[in-house]
Amino acid sequence: MSDEEQVRQINERFYMAMNTAEIDEMDEVWADDDSTICVHPGREAIFGYERIRESWMVIFSSSNSLSIAASNERINIAGDVAWVSCIETISLMMEGGLAAAAAQSTNIFRRTDGRWHMLVHHASPVPFTTQDEWPDGTN
Amino acid sequence: MSDEEQVRQINERFYMAMNTAEIDEMDEVWADDDSTICVHPGREAIFGYERIRESWMVIFSSSNSLSIAASNERINIAGDVAWVSCIETISLMMEGGLAAAAAQSTNIFRRTDGRWHMLVHHASPVPFTTQDEWPDGTN
Repeated sequence: MSDEEQVRQINERFYMAMNTAEIDEMDEVWADDDSTICVHPGREAIFGYERIRESWMVIFSSSNSLSIAASNERINIAGDVAWVSCIETISLMMEGGLAAAAAQSTNIFRRTDGRWHMLVHHASPVPFTTQDEWPDGTN
Repeated sequence: MSDEEQVRQINERFYMAMNTAEIDEMDEVWADDDSTICVHPGREAIFGYERIRESWMVIFSSSNSLSIAASNERINIAGDVAWVSCIETISLMMEGGLAAAAAQSTNIFRRTDGRWHMLVHHASPVPFTTQDEWPDGTN
């Protein structure tokens, strides 16, 4: 598998962990490291996997059902560090009904002993548009 | 100068370029590269330095006077790639008066021929608080 395919795979695994709300999968994806950083949309950064893990536990314990899809992935690799830019399309089933949102994400991964792990997840809110509405030039 | 000092310096130079609205300084800071990515707060990513440069030109041509300060920098370096997490405190002098805002930023740099350049700037809005209000645990 090429480096790019490996990075695409770990990035997809991260979103799959969110979709299935499996904290064990999050543990597999993230580096268990004090240098890890997580920025949830509209929030300040959380530092260190212990605290990051707690934030996912809170998200996963919510009664709102969440579905997330990544698209428009752009993968860059320099040695053992990779970063992926992608658009997240988020569907939330809440008491009031279905809500949709979009986020712009930057994810950084590092390869150690042949395995990639997430070091940084930075997601930020963007105006929600359908894919058809996205201008070709920017995506 | 240590790697960390070099990365701190290029990160500070980026914010100085914003403060002075000097596009030539932006040109020095950024890699002139199609792989560069810029996410302004609340917006989708812009790809490639040509388009990123245009976005700074638009920001710099605004009649609103902007002042920005970075704080709480966390610097990580892996070989020739570095990423900096920091809080941006932004003051905007607009027609209606002075406005303050805060952003969480992830900046990625790469070293080529001994010089660091910015590859990714991802800034996202966060609730504005004064530094005194920030909980010790997260910053």
